[in-house]
Amino acid sequence: MDIVISAFEQSPDRGRGLARDMRVRWALEEVGQPYEVRLLSFEAMKETSHLALQPFGQIPTYEDGEVVLFESGAIVQHIADRFEGLMPGETRARGRAVSWLFAALNSVEPPILELANARLLEMSQSWYAARLPFVEERVTLRLQQLSNALQGQDWLDGDFSAGDLMMASVVIRLKSSGLLEPFPDLMDYLSRCEARPAYQRAFAAQWAVFEAAIGQVTK
Amino acid sequence: MDIVISAFEQSPDRGRGLARDMRVRWALEEVGQPYEVRLLSFEAMKETSHLALQPFGQIPTYEDGEVVLFESGAIVQHIADRFEGLMPGETRARGRAVSWLFAALNSVEPPILELANARLLEMSQSWYAARLPFVEERVTLRLQQLSNALQGQDWLDGDFSAGDLMMASVVIRLKSSGLLEPFPDLMDYLSRCEARPAYQRAFAAQWAVFEAAIGQVTK
Repeated sequence: MDIVISAFEQSPDRGRGLARDMRVRWALEEVGQPYEVRLLSFEAMKETSHLALQPFGQIPTYEDGEVVLFESGAIVQHIADRFEGLMPGETRARGRAVSWLFAALNSVEPPILELANARLLEMSQSWYAARLPFVEERVTLRLQQLSNALQGQDWLDGDFSAGDLMMASVVIRLKSSGLLEPFPDLMDYLSRCEARPAYQRAFAAQWAVFEAAIGQVTK
Repeated sequence: MDIVISAFEQSPDRGRGLARDMRVRWALEEVGQPYEVRLLSFEAMKETSHLALQPFGQIPTYEDGEVVLFESGAIVQHIADRFEGLMPGETRARGRAVSWLFAALNSVEPPILELANARLLEMSQSWYAARLPFVEERVTLRLQQLSNALQGQDWLDGDFSAGDLMMASVVIRLKSSGLLEPFPDLMDYLSRCEARPAYQRAFAAQWAVFEAAIGQVTK
């Protein structure tokens, strides 16, 4: 069976490539695997048929005939394990790449999600402006630690891996936040990621979906 | 080489089993593997030697002669892959268990961390009480979805797996929050986890560390 993933019919990020299907598209492009996309409306994401695949009513999901997966982390790791190009072969190096993948999702992304929640859900609240520096401080701590770990290298550990793919996918959400500017090394790191042909193909694919959705709306 | 993990010399949770070494201890007990623990003070966690193992200055780390890992997710998954007892053998079932493990860390834990941050870091701020319901609502949404997915079963998908271990480890942080009470099925789920002999051995081990630390202080 072909690889099928699910994605937003109309991404709330307006095609900026921040939705979680982008991580999966990028991984599939890195390993050179074609895929189909099942586009879902917000209503369809809450339907029983989708909840059977994704208990939290989110995207993306992944099916390839062998497995049915949810959670971008599980999907990217599966792609990296199954196909050549995103996971070092050597056991110790693989362990470090997997550690970085989990670090992106569980140590770096939570404060970034907290910042996104503040902006998306609490911007009209009285406490928004006073609280923002507290949240930004938690994000900046992680960026400093990430910068220290990168040590001026191109990638987190040797060659580009699924760990870099996930870390960049998480940190890239900060691009318009102003929080990356104190870390030119991290901005360069993101630029290296964005320059990868696989990233560009993935970005163009998700952009085309958004553009088509907008076209339908404005028709 | 024996398995060596790192943990707090004196856990900030005062031995309640909420620190992330508990997940790893529990996993090692489930698969019947003995392990050693390197206890770290807060100062030691910031030293270069530890940062080389754990770039974010956190615990736990894991070494077994084959690999050196950080992030509790990466460690639990490695233990589940390497030893018998936490991962289904069948490919599709393994995919679902891994999806649940990632869901625990990236869909369920972030709002719980946000709640913990509010309590730990913002309780003395003017907005704390007014903002709390917003954060609690985000947690409750995830609990409702988790309850829906559990559907009255004992475990998330067939037999107890690394997915259950991680989900329970994440949700158990809510035990004193009052947010679990509307979900008696989730409270029963946690009770089933806590009743597992492996959980109890892991809990006792981390408690003994805390008790020893306190004994030294009060001596």
